[in-house]
Amino acid sequence: MDMNNTAEPRIDNKEDGYVVAVVGATGLVGRTMISILEERSFPVRRLVPLAASAGGRSVEFRGSSVPVQEAVPNAFAGVDIALFSAGADVSLNLAPEAAARGCAVVDNSSAWRMDPTVPLVVSQVNPEALRGHHGIIANPNCSTMQLAPLLQALHKEAGLRRVVVATYQAVSGAGGESVDDLRQQRAAVVAGEKPRSTIYPHAVVLSPIPAIDIFLEDGSTKEEQKVVRESRKILGIPDLRISATAVRIPVEVSHSEAVHVELERSLSPDRARTVFAQTEGVFVIDDPSKEMYPLAEQAAGSDGIFVGRVRTDESVEHGLAFWVVSDNVRKGAATNAVQIAELLIQNDLLWGSASRG
Amino acid sequence: MDMNNTAEPRIDNKEDGYVVAVVGATGLVGRTMISILEERSFPVRRLVPLAASAGGRSVEFRGSSVPVQEAVPNAFAGVDIALFSAGADVSLNLAPEAAARGCAVVDNSSAWRMDPTVPLVVSQVNPEALRGHHGIIANPNCSTMQLAPLLQALHKEAGLRRVVVATYQAVSGAGGESVDDLRQQRAAVVAGEKPRSTIYPHAVVLSPIPAIDIFLEDGSTKEEQKVVRESRKILGIPDLRISATAVRIPVEVSHSEAVHVELERSLSPDRARTVFAQTEGVFVIDDPSKEMYPLAEQAAGSDGIFVGRVRTDESVEHGLAFWVVSDNVRKGAATNAVQIAELLIQNDLLWGSASRG
Repeated sequence: MDMNNTAEPRIDNKEDGYVVAVVGATGLVGRTMISILEERSFPVRRLVPLAASAGGRSVEFRGSSVPVQEAVPNAFAGVDIALFSAGADVSLNLAPEAAARGCAVVDNSSAWRMDPTVPLVVSQVNPEALRGHHGIIANPNCSTMQLAPLLQALHKEAGLRRVVVATYQAVSGAGGESVDDLRQQRAAVVAGEKPRSTIYPHAVVLSPIPAIDIFLEDGSTKEEQKVVRESRKILGIPDLRISATAVRIPVEVSHSEAVHVELERSLSPDRARTVFAQTEGVFVIDDPSKEMYPLAEQAAGSDGIFVGRVRTDESVEHGLAFWVVSDNVRKGAATNAVQIAELLIQNDLLWGSASRG
Repeated sequence: MDMNNTAEPRIDNKEDGYVVAVVGATGLVGRTMISILEERSFPVRRLVPLAASAGGRSVEFRGSSVPVQEAVPNAFAGVDIALFSAGADVSLNLAPEAAARGCAVVDNSSAWRMDPTVPLVVSQVNPEALRGHHGIIANPNCSTMQLAPLLQALHKEAGLRRVVVATYQAVSGAGGESVDDLRQQRAAVVAGEKPRSTIYPHAVVLSPIPAIDIFLEDGSTKEEQKVVRESRKILGIPDLRISATAVRIPVEVSHSEAVHVELERSLSPDRARTVFAQTEGVFVIDDPSKEMYPLAEQAAGSDGIFVGRVRTDESVEHGLAFWVVSDNVRKGAATNAVQIAELLIQNDLLWGSASRG
């Protein structure tokens, strides 16, 4: 059993496969989860697309149209695995109902991530955390996800002393409506009109917005605290010194991050590139002489985590800076959720056995 | 003589005023310099707009159309003050020619900034550096400019130990053509076409681009090194520990910066806000409960430096984080150049006296 080998899933090709529900099936991440189940040939015997209001909608899966059902507790009867991406409230209500019915939940909301009894897993970073789960597994926040494999690699190689992150986050991190909202703002600018957001108080097409998720009492945002707390939990370093500024920018897909780390031991940029390149799912793009560095446009549609601009940060002992980009909807959300589901079936870690009797 | 009082210029209203040249008069910054001379009632007796190729163009000044002349050495004969914004090559060639003719040069290019004999001045930070100039005064880079007053205020209050900056820079920092280029990219996206830059290898409308100015051997960019070296020179702290990641984003006007500082002594966010609010030209916008924080859109067209998101950075002793925004074409370039010219005439620091006999 090799829990690190998620790149080439070794899934027993059961004739029957699994019953897989996707909650929030009509949302941006939900639709992407369904695509990725298909792309990765996940052994789906039956797909159960669920949404708060089914409303006669359907989703495409393997060339067929599958009707969306209403997300109610009994919808999880006989379901092996449910991938949730319908917001924290839905997850708080329905994930325990699903688990109580023997269904393993991989939840993409923030509802369960910091629950000490719930594993928070980046597939290639801490798959071992899946052991002993109680039916609910949390998928990390997108801005945390793409950073975790790099931080783990650096920690193993040279010891993390402190991490400072500034994010450049695509609007799709807030869902498909936010993408439409940016498109409308762009069209207004092109038409010579004043752009207005129909969702937010400010128009991101004119200004990077340093406010993602709600503000907390200490002046940080919940998004910034997700980077801090989730990174600590995933990496298993409860006192990791890490801080973030999280910013929305007028880009549709892929989050970018400027990262400055302070290490315990010296690490050259060359060695850092080697360590990154050896990390599963991570690709180094770092040739400034050819204007090659990770770009949101190039990461979009890929499951990779792209790192470049690796250089010494001269302002501190053992300092290193880099730039990391990944498709926030795929590896940052949907792909990692499917990879967790693959780990569950590869390692016989499903919660119930409802459909396998 | 109060060298700090640039907010309300106390300029002797000479009947004649000064002969003022603007080199690069048809460019984005040059045009803005001319507007600001007019806005601030700078005592201009005669405006001499200059450009590499005059080509029959003219500029508007105080309701009149003024023909643009060719920027040749003899164009500076009889000129008291020249504001240069036509690129480093033009400044390297022509600034000494202007100075040799008794003209005080305020140069917005990078050509002279790090010359130890040339003052590098942010009007409210180090006006005293103007004393003893040799005819050429350098205007800092835009991303450095908006940060310097805040860093000086923090250093005086609590001692700077280390600064980490990530920038979110508007395309106008690369001139008017880059604004047109972004507009064309936006129009292509709205039309459903693949956007392409006509100037750069990548389309910023789809990706934040972590590459401003040229790359240096150590993997940093010249823009990042400007933040490092110019900040040290302006603040008079030659060993200041500061590092930056400089990133272009698809916004037209105003640079934003996420800043994480480590201080020598404890400083509460409340006290930091007070210190910032007492700094000339700096305005605190920091009320998350009302979604109020500095925004590029709101800074555009203003000469202010706007700071908010002031909070403790818990990842380091005496850590503080904040978000700073300013109009890169105005305070970041044109306004500060005019403010330097005001300081020169207020303090009788003009280079020659060609026109005042």
